Amino acid sequence: MSIKFKILSENKKARTAIVKASHGIVHTPTLIPVATLASIKSLTPEDLQRLNIEIIIANTFHLYLRPGPDVIKKLGGLHKFMSFNKTIMTDSGGFQAFSLGLGLEHGVGKIITGNNIKKSRDKLALVEEDGVIFRSPIDNSKYKLTPDLSIKVQENLGADIIYALDECTSPLSDYKYTKESLERTHRWAQRCLEIHKTNQSLFGIVQGGEFKDLRTKSAKFISSLDFDGYGIGGVFGKSKEHMYDVIDWSIKPLDENKPRHLLGIGAIEDIFECVELGIDLFDCVAPTRLARMGYLFITPKSKGNKENKFRIRITNKIYKLDKTPIDKYCKCYTCKNFSKAYLRHLFVSNELTYHRLATYHNLYYFIDLFKQIRESIDQNKFSKLKRYWLK
Amino acid sequence: MSIKFKILSENKKARTAIVKASHGIVHTPTLIPVATLASIKSLTPEDLQRLNIEIIIANTFHLYLRPGPDVIKKLGGLHKFMSFNKTIMTDSGGFQAFSLGLGLEHGVGKIITGNNIKKSRDKLALVEEDGVIFRSPIDNSKYKLTPDLSIKVQENLGADIIYALDECTSPLSDYKYTKESLERTHRWAQRCLEIHKTNQSLFGIVQGGEFKDLRTKSAKFISSLDFDGYGIGGVFGKSKEHMYDVIDWSIKPLDENKPRHLLGIGAIEDIFECVELGIDLFDCVAPTRLARMGYLFITPKSKGNKENKFRIRITNKIYKLDKTPIDKYCKCYTCKNFSKAYLRHLFVSNELTYHRLATYHNLYYFIDLFKQIRESIDQNKFSKLKRYWLK
Repeated sequence: MSIKFKILSENKKARTAIVKASHGIVHTPTLIPVATLASIKSLTPEDLQRLNIEIIIANTFHLYLRPGPDVIKKLGGLHKFMSFNKTIMTDSGGFQAFSLGLGLEHGVGKIITGNNIKKSRDKLALVEEDGVIFRSPIDNSKYKLTPDLSIKVQENLGADIIYALDECTSPLSDYKYTKESLERTHRWAQRCLEIHKTNQSLFGIVQGGEFKDLRTKSAKFISSLDFDGYGIGGVFGKSKEHMYDVIDWSIKPLDENKPRHLLGIGAIEDIFECVELGIDLFDCVAPTRLARMGYLFITPKSKGNKENKFRIRITNKIYKLDKTPIDKYCKCYTCKNFSKAYLRHLFVSNELTYHRLATYHNLYYFIDLFKQIRESIDQNKFSKLKRYWLK
Repeated sequence: MSIKFKILSENKKARTAIVKASHGIVHTPTLIPVATLASIKSLTPEDLQRLNIEIIIANTFHLYLRPGPDVIKKLGGLHKFMSFNKTIMTDSGGFQAFSLGLGLEHGVGKIITGNNIKKSRDKLALVEEDGVIFRSPIDNSKYKLTPDLSIKVQENLGADIIYALDECTSPLSDYKYTKESLERTHRWAQRCLEIHKTNQSLFGIVQGGEFKDLRTKSAKFISSLDFDGYGIGGVFGKSKEHMYDVIDWSIKPLDENKPRHLLGIGAIEDIFECVELGIDLFDCVAPTRLARMGYLFITPKSKGNKENKFRIRITNKIYKLDKTPIDKYCKCYTCKNFSKAYLRHLFVSNELTYHRLATYHNLYYFIDLFKQIRESIDQNKFSKLKRYWLK
């Protein structure tokens, strides 16, 4: 079934809503935790349930390379494969056209690691009219990801919400390249809609780099097509203010009765600014990846603020004998049972249990933050909450 | 408080009993999972509770190096540090006198990894009359572990059951060395009893290599001292039959009203043979370490047997599309929710969640095996159960 989207409350441009999909309801605004290879690293579906996580996103490109969409299809699709019975989204693989292509060439964006990448800045992805040619970071083999293949792969993976193939340009791309790329992305969007036959919901992506006219054009065009929701893509590199402008330009022309997903952004400050602009969905590896790197989130009550990016680094020697939890106001399993000293010991000793306790806390933190955000919008107090956090 | 030990039923030499310690009751025979650095790798205390794990063992040597016994003492002791409120045991550090000393020199026993070890076969431990001189595998610094220090460290760690310092000899040690070592171990045992002042229970260790007269002598001597229980130590290298003889010699002279712990042994076959000889407690890294290496245990009903060591290797290509659980008769969380194909995918992709699901299954398997063993002894059917498993 196609998703149903219902706005529940509005506070200026910010809004709360529910997305009703085949595997249940998603309350927005919310975070979509990233299950790159069909698992939230170190957690189980039972943890996700306990964390009240209603939606996750898996990566088409990564699952295409392994274990392969045919394997997952034969095993009953992603929900059955990973034993998660709530909403699953997959991306199109288009972001990797950036991160393994222009992103790698320009040295911007996410760092992707793999056997062959560390050695050179050679691009592993090349965009052509009909698709993206990839070299696998695992074994160097060649693949061509076309709009048709992206949809086919996502149909086999069987998520509830899937994405049209796009090209994510680099912040260093000029106007001419960005415009050409955008027009190609639009042709791909149309093609994806044409061939899409399952009852999965299909989202289209707004691109256009940092250019106002291109963003407006893209959002108008994507909004004119029969998508179930919208992604806003791009690498928003230059400054926070500019980033918020770009997102605002991208949102304005969209149908307000469809969900808006800001792809790959998840810093606390950005969440508040973008919810304020009307974003409903955020996906970001930050909470889980930062946990594994030793960064644990703390609330304003526990001295989290813009300067410390709302987090502590657990390796810090000051925690060696610290009996207190990461955040004494946090009610998560980790904070109710373990001290910073213990977590630091586990991290320093490379103990696997660390990853789990840390990941659980960081996700709990973000899920709780979004709960506060939704309540504040419902109560017309979003600006107050935003001021409290970003003061 | 000292432990209380009560035998509940006997079936020839095999027996069921309860060990009542300050943090609750332990039903024996049972497995003591190994929490080397104060965590069962990848699991939480909540998992341990769900697995009905009543006792774990942590490693004095490893915790001495990091985070250090003073740190753990200041943080309230091991129970509070790791948030585990059932029985905890610590070893004496003596086994590392072997694994970093003669074991390394002779190329036998456990492989210990560390920054400096891979480069050479140089011993990192040297046994002297008053203790063991270690070089740390972490940073090469020198330590001398004496009976006094071992007890002091274990008092600071605060486990319910602690161990007297011993030297574990190598299967390649000759009679003369083994005898000298044994006499030293006995002097250390007496010294540990002399200086032990807390209300922790103190266990002594029987050594004596492969020599019947030394084993008998050691067991008689250790039994004559005021220990709360006994460890049977040694590396039982030559053959299974010889190993069972050595264990039998070590048990016979012991006070039958005290618990007997076979140190470091945990293969399925050995468990049956040694329960039959009267062993109450087993500690072994096998279930958890093998899980992390991709080996998952299966019962006889699922074709587990002596030949396949009761396990499958999850990397096997035949599992790529296998929709069935590790063991379809197993009722653990992993088997109830995940296919071998999914576990294989997680393992091959280095996903952290793999370790947890695998470790959980393997521990569930051993805990369940011991439950079956206890029931069979209670019902006078131990031999039948043993035949069924080892047929």
